[in-house]
Amino acid sequence: MQVDIGNALAAVATPGVEEQRLTDLDERVAEAHERIETGRERDEFGYAALNLPTRTDPAAIREAVEPVADAEAVLTVGIGGSALGAATVSTALGPSTVDHHVLDNVDPAAVDRLLGELSLEDTAVHVVSRSGTTVETLANFRVVRTAMTAAGVDWTDRTVVTTGPDGPLRALADERGLPATATPAGVPGRFSVLSSVGLVPAAIQGVDIEGLLAGAREVATGLTGSLFDCPAYAYGAVSHALDTEGARGNVVMPYAERLEPFAEWFAQLWAESLGKDGRGQTPIRALGATDQHSQLQLYRAGPPDKFVTLVRPRERADRPIPPAETDDHSHLDGVGLGELLDTEFEATEASLAAAGRPTVRVEFDRLDARGLGRLLYGMEAACVLAGELYGVETFTQPAVEWGKRATRAQLAGRETPETAALEDKHRFVIE
Amino acid sequence: MQVDIGNALAAVATPGVEEQRLTDLDERVAEAHERIETGRERDEFGYAALNLPTRTDPAAIREAVEPVADAEAVLTVGIGGSALGAATVSTALGPSTVDHHVLDNVDPAAVDRLLGELSLEDTAVHVVSRSGTTVETLANFRVVRTAMTAAGVDWTDRTVVTTGPDGPLRALADERGLPATATPAGVPGRFSVLSSVGLVPAAIQGVDIEGLLAGAREVATGLTGSLFDCPAYAYGAVSHALDTEGARGNVVMPYAERLEPFAEWFAQLWAESLGKDGRGQTPIRALGATDQHSQLQLYRAGPPDKFVTLVRPRERADRPIPPAETDDHSHLDGVGLGELLDTEFEATEASLAAAGRPTVRVEFDRLDARGLGRLLYGMEAACVLAGELYGVETFTQPAVEWGKRATRAQLAGRETPETAALEDKHRFVIE
Repeated sequence: MQVDIGNALAAVATPGVEEQRLTDLDERVAEAHERIETGRERDEFGYAALNLPTRTDPAAIREAVEPVADAEAVLTVGIGGSALGAATVSTALGPSTVDHHVLDNVDPAAVDRLLGELSLEDTAVHVVSRSGTTVETLANFRVVRTAMTAAGVDWTDRTVVTTGPDGPLRALADERGLPATATPAGVPGRFSVLSSVGLVPAAIQGVDIEGLLAGAREVATGLTGSLFDCPAYAYGAVSHALDTEGARGNVVMPYAERLEPFAEWFAQLWAESLGKDGRGQTPIRALGATDQHSQLQLYRAGPPDKFVTLVRPRERADRPIPPAETDDHSHLDGVGLGELLDTEFEATEASLAAAGRPTVRVEFDRLDARGLGRLLYGMEAACVLAGELYGVETFTQPAVEWGKRATRAQLAGRETPETAALEDKHRFVIE
Repeated sequence: MQVDIGNALAAVATPGVEEQRLTDLDERVAEAHERIETGRERDEFGYAALNLPTRTDPAAIREAVEPVADAEAVLTVGIGGSALGAATVSTALGPSTVDHHVLDNVDPAAVDRLLGELSLEDTAVHVVSRSGTTVETLANFRVVRTAMTAAGVDWTDRTVVTTGPDGPLRALADERGLPATATPAGVPGRFSVLSSVGLVPAAIQGVDIEGLLAGAREVATGLTGSLFDCPAYAYGAVSHALDTEGARGNVVMPYAERLEPFAEWFAQLWAESLGKDGRGQTPIRALGATDQHSQLQLYRAGPPDKFVTLVRPRERADRPIPPAETDDHSHLDGVGLGELLDTEFEATEASLAAAGRPTVRVEFDRLDARGLGRLLYGMEAACVLAGELYGVETFTQPAVEWGKRATRAQLAGRETPETAALEDKHRFVIE
């Protein structure tokens, strides 16, 4: 991973970061790095995530998926951190011969359609919930099991479970003798992509998960106590510094279709880790070049309250644009689609700089297993560093509990303070 | 469309809007409504979009697509406003028997994969560009034509063109005798969903486009000069008022998977129309219930600088959750997936209110053609109203031209001020 913060400096952009500010900030980065290293050494909650590249055993994952290795499609049943990492890896690296689908919502219409389209006997199911009690996942898994049975498929032959040491999913796996992998101890869901949570579907698809972990290890061993030596920390520190200067939003805009779920994964990582105590930067998902025709007007001419993270692989296989007699764009003849995409990347970056709007460029060699491993680990390390600089509890997400309690109580017909608040809604309806 | 602004009021939320403020604002709404009505009567640029429900002729669209009515898949080649409307309508209403694909990026890997997966002889191509000069669309259309020819398919038999009266695409359609529809005069791309731009793929899929237009017409005839009588204006006015109180971001969170592209469509509408002169609210795409497990922590406990627009149909076909012996969630037995989703909708809304964070609820009867037509038109009217309140040029997007010029000049090898700026990039690389 290489990070170019040139266009985030105050010399170019407003909001922007003075170089002296970075030098001052580097002392805090050194302290934060020590905290992180201590956390990693002791495998403390959360910090343990940064040890996954050495802790995760790809052979155990390959063994667990062996019974479903013949699948022609993989269906992940999970939500949030139990789905986004797997979607990211499988979309970026999975072959077109084995599709990966994700059931991460409880919309009956979408569930109906997906189950109607899948050949269930050829599908491997990966059900993921650390606690084994996630209501959406349990509900969907019940629906999937029932649909498989109705289709004459023995779901116990087609299912791999990833869960913690206790809870209903673990009990089910034990009782039915299902292949199972463990969610990593001490690692919140959004930091679990480099474990079985993120890698089981990829393993079924035949992805090089060993290479992915190797790429992540390279970044892990390269973390140093200075943002000037460490791209991951540079990204975390500059993002935080830009926020304090007024860049409240972080637009994550990869120039690679296969990284579209990466932007969603990043958005969870950033939002759930840093969004607390009234602090945190709002991640905004985008996609280059597509969103140049949708969002760029706002980024360039709207309020100066955000920065854009431009992400791309430095090399990609290209496909030439055939010549055509029918339009006057002869400058496209023989140019590669990828060359066009990269030119647009640079033009968008320059256009934002010309308008004085900050950007950060994040590049990696190639969109292969190693490159993706480096990118994912780099962003995790950046997020942990940013959490230290914000002074928040990076690894918790207390604010989501209220709604979960309300949902459970409402469905169970229990009266609680949450259900009372539900009944009490302040209405002002225009119709 | 029904809009409930109860949880956006200062009595509930911070930022929030005082009821007196709304009363004051309503005078400006009345003025804006007059301006909008005048624009509609004169078919002025942009305002003309609000006349599409009566101006669009569905019979002409059905006639244009007749030659490809047997298609088993539709491929839209377009970008931005030439793609997002079609994606929104076809995803929301299209049958599972005729897939709709969109080529709205120039990533060679994604183009390769899509063309490899499609049965080109059974695919209808809809190529869309108002000017006929959009570089990404021309490039992709050349690639698609070449791939069809290579597959032994006569692309002139499978292509429908939507473009303006002049330009290379119009010339091509004339020369080859292709079925063609016209982009509506005086309507920017992001406001063109209710024209052939958005409806051709749906027509090929057999969607009730007449019903969609009828739903839109119902809202069009119901626009009044008071936000208290007009849900669309209420939404536009309250969004603007919340912005002035500090809600710089507008999180659009539909609770229906089939509305995921709607959130993208909305994001373009809002960003490109309002994001200028340093003003404009940043749209942030989300999806319920999924993003409760990803973004809700930030929305509830992060900086109080955004509001959440919760969108749902009031009725939906449901699917019961089968009982299971294997977990202790017996309160799920026989509950519908949709019932669970709706309970989560209400719990999320209440949880944000409990934290004092503003939300607006947007509901419509059913996710059918009529309901979608009402929603799309309602949001367009809301956006035009908001543009009047912000005092911006709602229908232009001047800030994106710089990057387009830079890309063209760079690919053509011409030296211009833009390419000089490209070369001149300020670099500060950490690796």
